Amino acid sequence: MSTENTPATVPLLDHHCHGVTLHNLDDSAFESLITESDWGAPEGTTHFDTQVGFAIRRHCAPVLGLDPFVSAEAYLARRRELGGDEVSRRLLRATGISDYFIEIGHRADEILDPTEMADAAGARAFEVVRLERLAEELVIAGCDAAGFREAYDGVLDERLRSAIGVKSIAAYRIGLDFAPERPSSEEVDEALARWIDTTGDVVRLDDPVIIRHLLWAAVDRACAIQFHIGYGDADVDLHRCDPLLLTEFLRLTRPTGARVMLLHCYPFHREAGYLAQVFPHVYFDVGLAINYTGSRSDEIIAETLELAPFHKILFSSDAFGVAELYYLGALLFRRGLQRALDVFVERDQWPAGECARITELVAWRNARRAYRLDDRLFAVETGLVGAEGP
Amino acid sequence: MSTENTPATVPLLDHHCHGVTLHNLDDSAFESLITESDWGAPEGTTHFDTQVGFAIRRHCAPVLGLDPFVSAEAYLARRRELGGDEVSRRLLRATGISDYFIEIGHRADEILDPTEMADAAGARAFEVVRLERLAEELVIAGCDAAGFREAYDGVLDERLRSAIGVKSIAAYRIGLDFAPERPSSEEVDEALARWIDTTGDVVRLDDPVIIRHLLWAAVDRACAIQFHIGYGDADVDLHRCDPLLLTEFLRLTRPTGARVMLLHCYPFHREAGYLAQVFPHVYFDVGLAINYTGSRSDEIIAETLELAPFHKILFSSDAFGVAELYYLGALLFRRGLQRALDVFVERDQWPAGECARITELVAWRNARRAYRLDDRLFAVETGLVGAEGP
Amino acid sequence: MSTENTPATVPLLDHHCHGVTLHNLDDSAFESLITESDWGAPEGTTHFDTQVGFAIRRHCAPVLGLDPFVSAEAYLARRRELGGDEVSRRLLRATGISDYFIEIGHRADEILDPTEMADAAGARAFEVVRLERLAEELVIAGCDAAGFREAYDGVLDERLRSAIGVKSIAAYRIGLDFAPERPSSEEVDEALARWIDTTGDVVRLDDPVIIRHLLWAAVDRACAIQFHIGYGDADVDLHRCDPLLLTEFLRLTRPTGARVMLLHCYPFHREAGYLAQVFPHVYFDVGLAINYTGSRSDEIIAETLELAPFHKILFSSDAFGVAELYYLGALLFRRGLQRALDVFVERDQWPAGECARITELVAWRNARRAYRLDDRLFAVETGLVGAEGP
Repeated sequence: MSTENTPATVPLLDHHCHGVTLHNLDDSAFESLITESDWGAPEGTTHFDTQVGFAIRRHCAPVLGLDPFVSAEAYLARRRELGGDEVSRRLLRATGISDYFIEIGHRADEILDPTEMADAAGARAFEVVRLERLAEELVIAGCDAAGFREAYDGVLDERLRSAIGVKSIAAYRIGLDFAPERPSSEEVDEALARWIDTTGDVVRLDDPVIIRHLLWAAVDRACAIQFHIGYGDADVDLHRCDPLLLTEFLRLTRPTGARVMLLHCYPFHREAGYLAQVFPHVYFDVGLAINYTGSRSDEIIAETLELAPFHKILFSSDAFGVAELYYLGALLFRRGLQRALDVFVERDQWPAGECARITELVAWRNARRAYRLDDRLFAVETGLVGAEGP
Repeated sequence: MSTENTPATVPLLDHHCHGVTLHNLDDSAFESLITESDWGAPEGTTHFDTQVGFAIRRHCAPVLGLDPFVSAEAYLARRRELGGDEVSRRLLRATGISDYFIEIGHRADEILDPTEMADAAGARAFEVVRLERLAEELVIAGCDAAGFREAYDGVLDERLRSAIGVKSIAAYRIGLDFAPERPSSEEVDEALARWIDTTGDVVRLDDPVIIRHLLWAAVDRACAIQFHIGYGDADVDLHRCDPLLLTEFLRLTRPTGARVMLLHCYPFHREAGYLAQVFPHVYFDVGLAINYTGSRSDEIIAETLELAPFHKILFSSDAFGVAELYYLGALLFRRGLQRALDVFVERDQWPAGECARITELVAWRNARRAYRLDDRLFAVETGLVGAEGP
Repeated sequence: MSTENTPATVPLLDHHCHGVTLHNLDDSAFESLITESDWGAPEGTTHFDTQVGFAIRRHCAPVLGLDPFVSAEAYLARRRELGGDEVSRRLLRATGISDYFIEIGHRADEILDPTEMADAAGARAFEVVRLERLAEELVIAGCDAAGFREAYDGVLDERLRSAIGVKSIAAYRIGLDFAPERPSSEEVDEALARWIDTTGDVVRLDDPVIIRHLLWAAVDRACAIQFHIGYGDADVDLHRCDPLLLTEFLRLTRPTGARVMLLHCYPFHREAGYLAQVFPHVYFDVGLAINYTGSRSDEIIAETLELAPFHKILFSSDAFGVAELYYLGALLFRRGLQRALDVFVERDQWPAGECARITELVAWRNARRAYRLDDRLFAVETGLVGAEGP
């Protein structure tokens, strides 16, 4: 085992995040990126008065050469002074993340793509394809209902030559209580005709039959399929994002070779841990709930270490846009995992070697195995597929 | 900042409670007021064998001049000896609560009204109007379906001249999974005719169309609207009291100026914290879950400090009937907030000034802002509306 | 009070478990019994990399004469060396469990029956009848629809002469969102005809009308009725196992004399605690969630001590098959209860006598009262019913 096997020093594989922006952000743009709310804080208040805001002032300020807990104003001023590019590089390079799996289906024009992220962070980066966006892009490009299924198969195969996995946002487009079975071709064609006929300037896929078709196309390819679960995005109906609603879909997909990654999961992370125990192809993380709960993240990380096998828990930051979120995701994850292990050592004398082994599993080994990263890296080395990396 | 800005000493604004009774209570009447059960404890057991029962013996006994953990019998004997009036005054005046927002829609004839509460507690008191009760009172007074909507508008406007906000018990009359949209006048009139025609001696509003009409009337007045959420009252179907079921209603009401206060919330307080982050007009507390969980309340208070912005968390006791519940609500809230802050200081060196600021926000500033109390006090001072106070 | 009244030494009444097997288990059979998953762990992983796996290596190894945290391989080798019989007797006799309530409706041919368990464990054992299995056995024996109701009444009465209570697996056969009312005889007869006509070689009862009939037959006999709730078994739809879904059934059964025991409950144990406060005839435990969460079980046990009255909380191991699960259930329960009480003493100076009293309540007194064990023992002594015991 390497010497890099304590939570403080282990390299991290961030199996779910988005790109960062290098732009200089004005204050309100920055503030809008440290909340999942779509609106400003009420008059006289600020999104900095949150766990994540406090964590930025506490932990990110020193990376920018400031004292801990400088005011939000001073922090933002220093950020402007250094420039978005420098701030982002400093914070990203301080995360200790060696690999980023980057989902680019959301506001892609505002953030770095995987190649640029690899460069900015000094790390490897891999793409995760958002299924619903892929379908929307086809329709935007003029694909009609008659040609959609074949065209989609083609473009998905093409993207999977380089992408490490796929993601679905079924949670906030249709709710996780969708019918779990594969829809028939006839049903799909009808739904496609209806959708494409009526779609206007803004192409937005929220048809359950079509989304189920996209999911089963991914299942057929034995992909790693990420699902948005729980917290994140103001337009979710959170009670329809409980991962337990996927139970029958998980039963149906168990023998297919597909793996299902449940993302963030808060406040349903105990439910996710149950699914990760019961289904051999289910993995989960509490990404977004780590950076956003700051001084409380230790408890949430500890709660993930209950029913889930240690080989089923993953690390992610689910960061988007600002480098602070990657940095805090990594820092707080390291700390929370260390504290949980410390408690287990105190209570039950877990051996140091076992703590180190579990640390490596959760930090990167589980993701590497579950996403079959070694196969992927071999394909890159042998020129079978393209690569992004430093 | 004042010197009264630690949790131990800060004045509290109790934004949701009911009135106390000054009557001498017999033992079974007292015991029925320290549980949310509608029934006696099983034979051979007592409602004192609970967290709240232990907290009374531990913390309230000394206020009555007894040793901590005297027996329940000795406590009740001392209570009888001192008399309900003296006991209530002692406990209320030891809470450090400066302002009570009192909802009087439940068993109003048995408990003090706001003026009397202000006198007993040596504090200010403001009224919160229960929407469903207001409608029932109109019907009891003989209002017919044809005249209801206009009459209701009038009486609601009248009550809001002095009341600080309104409350809805939609949770246990119709469930929070009600249709979120404003019902049409025709729908409302039909529902009113149906209700008023069929109502008997006991007038009980449980029609979803009418209750939605009442809610939207409050929204139109840009009120602070309290919602019963989660734990409390044996006649709730708790799975229909999950605040996430309000999500679409919150989307629709966001631009209206109304504010929505989610009350008590346990065991859905993490869900409530999510809503308080995502929606700018949503606030919440864990009132009833503090006094009723006693020695475990620290953990529940800490769980409220995760996703919710610090400017969205409120204090309440949700006490009803016996002064012990106000006293414990205040004492355990102070303690739990202090312990949570102590942990954050230990983990992340939160500055003392920031701890003091957050303490004041949660203790009273958030409620004062959210309920627009300063406008209300100005109106009182200038004689525009009536007031209750010492 | 006896001297055996600390959590470490108090005798335990395990109000819900299954039988152990004395067979020599091969490695994969053993591993399949330390998970609720129906499938093997993913390639390259093991079910030992879990909290329960770590707890076995930590706590059970020394009982078998090994060092703590020997490898899984060494543990299994020692287990084979000693033999299933010796291993089971050692572990069971080290639990300090004085009474086992054993449900024998699942894989009964592979595990010990109550008499054999009593002998192996050196304890008393009582039978709990699985309602659905009883009905299936009747049909397997050739009972037709016309004769079913009378035959079932007879066999249930007969079994209740010796059994201490009944259990229902409605949770994973029909979901807890079943219609709560008693079905009419006509409805039941129709459902029986349908079921018995169409049943094949495998008789499996999953008809909601018939299961409701079985439940109400138990209610009519004022039984102690155990309900599977929450975690456990890979074939549950966990979102349909929320105990809150039983709310109306609990209202209807409150005046009947029946008592309802909510089993394991995780991750809905706070919901179960609410029901145990509000309904006088509701009890609960977190059995399976104790042995399966190992080093995290302290937190889960503490979470049960919130709303529930102390006279409503029960101990169970919910162990099945391997003696390790009984041993860990007992050991971790003792430790978790002690730690929770230690915290309450630290925070609120709970008196030692009160801690001892609550320990006895939860460890065995509550179950003894709720199941009316004294009546049962009297019947045994006077020869009215049979008994199993050492």
